[in-house]
Amino acid sequence: MARLPGLGPRSARRAVLHLVKKRDTQLRPLARLMEEVGRTVRSCLNCGNLSTGDVCAICASAKRQNGQICVVEDVADLWAMERAQVFEGRYHVLGGTLSPLDDIGPEDLHIPKLRDRISAEEVTEVILALNATVDGQTTAHYVARELEGTGVIVSGLAQGVPVGGELDYLDGGTLRAALSSRKAF
Amino acid sequence: MARLPGLGPRSARRAVLHLVKKRDTQLRPLARLMEEVGRTVRSCLNCGNLSTGDVCAICASAKRQNGQICVVEDVADLWAMERAQVFEGRYHVLGGTLSPLDDIGPEDLHIPKLRDRISAEEVTEVILALNATVDGQTTAHYVARELEGTGVIVSGLAQGVPVGGELDYLDGGTLRAALSSRKAF
Ligand SMILES: [Zn+2]
Ligand SMILES: [Zn+2]
Repeated sequence: MARLPGLGPRSARRAVLHLVKKRDTQLRPLARLMEEVGRTVRSCLNCGNLSTGDVCAICASAKRQNGQICVVEDVADLWAMERAQVFEGRYHVLGGTLSPLDDIGPEDLHIPKLRDRISAEEVTEVILALNATVDGQTTAHYVARELEGTGVIVSGLAQGVPVGGELDYLDGGTLRAALSSRKAF
Repeated sequence: MARLPGLGPRSARRAVLHLVKKRDTQLRPLARLMEEVGRTVRSCLNCGNLSTGDVCAICASAKRQNGQICVVEDVADLWAMERAQVFEGRYHVLGGTLSPLDDIGPEDLHIPKLRDRISAEEVTEVILALNATVDGQTTAHYVARELEGTGVIVSGLAQGVPVGGELDYLDGGTLRAALSSRKAF
């Protein structure tokens, strides 16, 4: 349990102790639930989102618009976009970012499937919603190059001051991006 | 000392104790320095920056470009912009943001002087570098309206993902701004 992200060894020990004490009301139901999740949840064959069937709820939904695909690094980022309720198109989970240090190369990302979807789903715009980190932006540029010649518009999230952000707490890079992308009122 | 921003009562007590113990090497020199700063430092008559003369070093510098004025809330924000080394024009310190709760109204902000400077310094663009908070953005819109008819371009800092920002940690408002201001690659 100490290997779970966000749990240090001490909190892991406390969680285990808590579960063992409540073995009938908590430990066993949790174990059953985990077993069931492990058996039924898999990756959407279309976008890589978590799914209980071949195709996830978002790919299957008639309410989501065709035409725009939002590319995210992993399912956690897809959830972040969905929580914000800002995007009504469909997603594509890359499955990672290029990272020479972690030995993740282009062949580990789901780019061929993305290219297939562009023609199959009549996509006009691919929005690269990748982290504003070095790895995220390197990956964004790589994917953008890979999509050249498909005729699709490739865009990236704007960089700037986060909502609620105070100038005095922002780093120089963010101020530079916010100033160079300033918008007329 | 506990009234200083960033110092809680406990750190304030420790700082006082430290200064009293080192009264000759630290307390007295600090007191002299503070007295001198209080006597010599005042507000630049042109922009509101701190200054030892009538006009601050930035307003007086021939290296700074005329034509662009970056409007900030206070001197701390001016320092933040200068630390980032992103702006080569001149500044104007508003002296606060509109805040009904704190009883700060338009008459408390240095807007008339800003209007004077636009013609006197042949300004073509005013960049409102105000915080991305409710008060900051309310103030930005108020200043923009006050500058209508001056012929100057009024712009604001871009909102979006801060540099290094990871989607999973961003609030919905920031994701919305970043998506709606997305840029073609
Ligand atoms: Zn799917
Ligand atoms: Zn000045």
